[in-house]
Amino acid sequence: MIIMKTDATQEQIAQVVKEIKKYGLRADVSRGAYRTVIGLVGDETRIPFDHFAVLPGVREVRMVDIPYKLISREYSKSFEGLEHMVIKVGTIEIGGKEPVFIAGPCAVESKAQLMKIAEGVKKAGAHILRGGIFKPRSSVHSFQGLGAGGQEEAEEALEWLREAGEKFELPVITEVRGETQVDLVAEYVDIIQIGARNMYDQDLLTQVAKKGKPVLLKRHFGAGIEEFLSFTEYIAAEGNKDIVLCERGIVPVGKGRSYTRYVLDLASVPAIQKETYLPVIVDPSHATGRRDLIFNMSCAAIAAGASGLMIEVHYNPVEALVDAQQQITPDELKDVIDACRRINKVVVSERNEGV
Amino acid sequence: MIIMKTDATQEQIAQVVKEIKKYGLRADVSRGAYRTVIGLVGDETRIPFDHFAVLPGVREVRMVDIPYKLISREYSKSFEGLEHMVIKVGTIEIGGKEPVFIAGPCAVESKAQLMKIAEGVKKAGAHILRGGIFKPRSSVHSFQGLGAGGQEEAEEALEWLREAGEKFELPVITEVRGETQVDLVAEYVDIIQIGARNMYDQDLLTQVAKKGKPVLLKRHFGAGIEEFLSFTEYIAAEGNKDIVLCERGIVPVGKGRSYTRYVLDLASVPAIQKETYLPVIVDPSHATGRRDLIFNMSCAAIAAGASGLMIEVHYNPVEALVDAQQQITPDELKDVIDACRRINKVVVSERNEGV
Amino acid sequence: MIIMKTDATQEQIAQVVKEIKKYGLRADVSRGAYRTVIGLVGDETRIPFDHFAVLPGVREVRMVDIPYKLISREYSKSFEGLEHMVIKVGTIEIGGKEPVFIAGPCAVESKAQLMKIAEGVKKAGAHILRGGIFKPRSSVHSFQGLGAGGQEEAEEALEWLREAGEKFELPVITEVRGETQVDLVAEYVDIIQIGARNMYDQDLLTQVAKKGKPVLLKRHFGAGIEEFLSFTEYIAAEGNKDIVLCERGIVPVGKGRSYTRYVLDLASVPAIQKETYLPVIVDPSHATGRRDLIFNMSCAAIAAGASGLMIEVHYNPVEALVDAQQQITPDELKDVIDACRRINKVVVSERNEGV
Amino acid sequence: MIIMKTDATQEQIAQVVKEIKKYGLRADVSRGAYRTVIGLVGDETRIPFDHFAVLPGVREVRMVDIPYKLISREYSKSFEGLEHMVIKVGTIEIGGKEPVFIAGPCAVESKAQLMKIAEGVKKAGAHILRGGIFKPRSSVHSFQGLGAGGQEEAEEALEWLREAGEKFELPVITEVRGETQVDLVAEYVDIIQIGARNMYDQDLLTQVAKKGKPVLLKRHFGAGIEEFLSFTEYIAAEGNKDIVLCERGIVPVGKGRSYTRYVLDLASVPAIQKETYLPVIVDPSHATGRRDLIFNMSCAAIAAGASGLMIEVHYNPVEALVDAQQQITPDELKDVIDACRRINKVVVSERNEGV
Repeated sequence: MIIMKTDATQEQIAQVVKEIKKYGLRADVSRGAYRTVIGLVGDETRIPFDHFAVLPGVREVRMVDIPYKLISREYSKSFEGLEHMVIKVGTIEIGGKEPVFIAGPCAVESKAQLMKIAEGVKKAGAHILRGGIFKPRSSVHSFQGLGAGGQEEAEEALEWLREAGEKFELPVITEVRGETQVDLVAEYVDIIQIGARNMYDQDLLTQVAKKGKPVLLKRHFGAGIEEFLSFTEYIAAEGNKDIVLCERGIVPVGKGRSYTRYVLDLASVPAIQKETYLPVIVDPSHATGRRDLIFNMSCAAIAAGASGLMIEVHYNPVEALVDAQQQITPDELKDVIDACRRINKVVVSERNEGV
Repeated sequence: MIIMKTDATQEQIAQVVKEIKKYGLRADVSRGAYRTVIGLVGDETRIPFDHFAVLPGVREVRMVDIPYKLISREYSKSFEGLEHMVIKVGTIEIGGKEPVFIAGPCAVESKAQLMKIAEGVKKAGAHILRGGIFKPRSSVHSFQGLGAGGQEEAEEALEWLREAGEKFELPVITEVRGETQVDLVAEYVDIIQIGARNMYDQDLLTQVAKKGKPVLLKRHFGAGIEEFLSFTEYIAAEGNKDIVLCERGIVPVGKGRSYTRYVLDLASVPAIQKETYLPVIVDPSHATGRRDLIFNMSCAAIAAGASGLMIEVHYNPVEALVDAQQQITPDELKDVIDACRRINKVVVSERNEGV
Repeated sequence: MIIMKTDATQEQIAQVVKEIKKYGLRADVSRGAYRTVIGLVGDETRIPFDHFAVLPGVREVRMVDIPYKLISREYSKSFEGLEHMVIKVGTIEIGGKEPVFIAGPCAVESKAQLMKIAEGVKKAGAHILRGGIFKPRSSVHSFQGLGAGGQEEAEEALEWLREAGEKFELPVITEVRGETQVDLVAEYVDIIQIGARNMYDQDLLTQVAKKGKPVLLKRHFGAGIEEFLSFTEYIAAEGNKDIVLCERGIVPVGKGRSYTRYVLDLASVPAIQKETYLPVIVDPSHATGRRDLIFNMSCAAIAAGASGLMIEVHYNPVEALVDAQQQITPDELKDVIDACRRINKVVVSERNEGV
Repeated sequence: MIIMKTDATQEQIAQVVKEIKKYGLRADVSRGAYRTVIGLVGDETRIPFDHFAVLPGVREVRMVDIPYKLISREYSKSFEGLEHMVIKVGTIEIGGKEPVFIAGPCAVESKAQLMKIAEGVKKAGAHILRGGIFKPRSSVHSFQGLGAGGQEEAEEALEWLREAGEKFELPVITEVRGETQVDLVAEYVDIIQIGARNMYDQDLLTQVAKKGKPVLLKRHFGAGIEEFLSFTEYIAAEGNKDIVLCERGIVPVGKGRSYTRYVLDLASVPAIQKETYLPVIVDPSHATGRRDLIFNMSCAAIAAGASGLMIEVHYNPVEALVDAQQQITPDELKDVIDACRRINKVVVSERNEGV
């Protein structure tokens, strides 16, 4: 990471970038409130650091020996002086003072279903509408989402999503599962989601990043925190730092029956926040797989410091084609949001004085 | 499980117990507000259920096919009509409306250290004083607690603990690590703790249970919820139902460095509460191993529905002989307790109306 | 699964397929030594089984309630009477009597490097040449394989691979990491590999399957066996059953430093073989990440019943750009192959008489 | 670790030991073929190393910064010049050239049952007879072994074990589950087993070690290798180095049904052998929980380098009161032993020339 002097000129910055490219690396130029910092993308050991230290306009050359440099707090502090940054999606701020609620059906099933749920989650106080169109499924024999019906059906479902978003003034988000879906999805949504199963798919990450839209990346259920952040870096390496991280549970360990689908690793929320300036949210629906645990685990996530929640909602959960047992109703969502807001106030006010 | 009629006589109950013993099983007689219920300890398949159904005073014979019958909600509901029960330790109620805070040093190091910390945690609002005397340690080359110095040193440390408890009006708890320590520890403490590493030690569980004192049992870091409850049943099978369950993290999964010592499985709190009438508390200190995460994870635990917390406290954490990096100060404890109480209020009030 | 009579006509088969499509499912027609069987791809519950049972030429309609029907032993037995099937790659048989050895460099670095290693592994007795061109890497800052240099560089490396294969009479295999690479890779290789990190990528699986070439699918390190087989079904659902399964270790559990990169789950080899007719091989290189364990774990894999091994080889391991610490030399490979062949003989001869 | 000169006198050794005790540590004096080495038990940082370096007879003072010093290869090499040591049990050598087979029923059920199985395993070629008397069980409602019937029944079962051992010339082994059973068990058996669930029970380890008999310690299913070896050190710290380590599977990870009870971590066998001079054996019965996998996984364990196997055997497995589904017959055991011996020959001969 190359920290420029506060009075470094455009030419000096360009010169450093040019030198970096000579060594086969890419440059991530971050202009901030404090100063300009240039991150290196690629193998830093190929760079003669001494050579860069004496280039005009360079204040300091600093080796960062973690695999997630560009999303590290050290990086944002050096050019913005900030430990946490806010992602803006329309008028919504993710990572700000208030928790953000993303809600909607697991899978979009029909226009009527989507509109009805959109209306419900809006009334309940949600900020962003979710709806799955390309569903990642464990079994090829299960319903794969409307997107599986071909280009036309996928586009129609995406149009419903946008229409619902516009009607109820909710930015929209949906998941892309494969590279061939990226262009299409990017046209319709405000945030592109990459699901847990695709977290390791660096080609998909890179391609989504290039769209320049905010990205929501879920942690894979077999990934340690270091891996999660290392793969997030693939998005940042394309110059896209509008990334929302999402904890959604890791694989259960131990014998006997599972009482929850995954193990929700809530301590990862503050642990990740100490490492990166990106906001972290939590998905209690997939983590627990149980409607009757959503209220408790939503409250717990906000208390742990999460910047928001992603929750699956259906007006009649038992009817849902996918994940029926984990969806809650709009009324229940309202209770969750009310409780979470009050908890957030407690946590924020106490933390200021506290640890 | 044999449910007696409400007007069943003592003789009829005694007769059923006698019959049970004939088949090589033990009987757990629970007299409640509703009626008397007799749980079976042992292999139920050996029992001719039809025979019992027609004994005088018997209302119903019900097969319970989970390995933790005596601690199940179904059991408590049948004789008390209650889903959750409160454990009383002096005037303290664990599992009641207010969260209970157990705090103190990881290891008792000296009388002065203990007294100073006891005073600190009392002022901060804690209810019960903890202090380790027999320390389970991964390495034989590490400090093993004052209890390792022999009977005399162990007894001296236990006396300090009791003295500190009496002086600051705090019931006291310490861990027993081996069977030979049980009699001694039971003389001095109000609650006997069985640590995570000993959760599978059924001989220790049985012996501790027989002391008739409240028991705090921690979940082993390699144990699923079903195993945790199955081993808890060993305590209940001795007729001792004053058991506090404690979640303290499970083994991390995945590659790369660990950001927390264990993975705190907070969803296990409400999941366990759906299964048993016993209260569940959380130990964020061992789970995270990081001072800077205690505040967040304490708040999260209470928000998840925990009945209390067990937190390691030291007036000067860096000085502590054991687990220095995870202990907080009494002042920090106060902030934790204040925030947790406020969160508990939110959760309790919202939940009544909510899911 | 619809089992046709042995004398069922082409028309009758076509009629059943037509009916299946009416219900929105796809048909997998398997013509075998015994009879023709038609597998259903999609949600079987939508099918009125009674209706199909009386169609002309139908012998039996059987519900299979596992998510991996088309690759199950039950399926192959019904039309071929075989529990295990052999995948042919040129003259090489995977799943036959002799273990198959796939060997080569972790990453292709240059033509000279590849040729030298190809010669070495051929002499050592290997059957198939591997060489990574699109490398999945945890860090964006690491070497990503020659494929990362763009279309031209990727194609050049693929040409080297084919040339090396032809020169030393070794079929070749390389990994595709993303959907956009599939067409290109399929032109050059004999087997297409899907790596562990992409196991959950159903779009990639589907696209690779459609190429009609043999596929090697590695188990994800966070996947249970049921998930592994369920995702394999995505390939089979495209009519491609030439699939080689590969165990390469699952995420380590527990605290303290890791002595092996992953935990090689060798019992999964016979456990999987009881479920499916597809051959299972083992990759000890990625599983252990340690050169000094390759010999032992290769022997163990063959003893466990694996149909082959995939091993990383370099003439000078310390020079390798990727995974230097886990590659062995051609000479060491020869010792591994010799030992494995002898062990295979023991296991095969004893098993016939044994359990 | 203090390495004495080859000509150091008894007085000089005694002097060093005396000095060590002054600092509150214990000394482990190991007299070997090469020289005498004194290991330190306790916190080495309390020791002024310079002071010891100049004591008469001292050749070298070496800091060992792993938690398992006394069982490390570095330790044994320094006084014996050996990387691996052999444990002798009567005429049986564990860790020698030939694999050792420990076999017998999961639980002793009656004298007749034990005698019949003992005869069977002897004929099959086993070397040591196992039989569980104190059974660790997940459920208090399951059969707990004859030892649960009280002192008298336990003693009777132990007498049968000894009688069977004498009659068929097989050393015997059984598990102790709690501290109160140690004295009794030690009277009757040749090797004392500590089960996986008790691996973390340092009080039990210490007490068993003091009996001076060979100890077989199983790895806990939630323990990493480092933890396994660190707890083994508790036994060695009592001066008892006759320890056999046993891998028996770790907790499964991932979703969906388990195809094996635990995950047999065979790579731990050679990985542990690189760290310690103690022999490592494998228990495929508990690891897999499946009769139909015992043959394969036994062969694999020996191929991985294990010094022996512990296998559960019953003449009529379906009749067994405990773990019926994982026991094999004496005839099947014979096939296992024959195959393993042949595999061992291959591995040993090839390894000499190989990696």
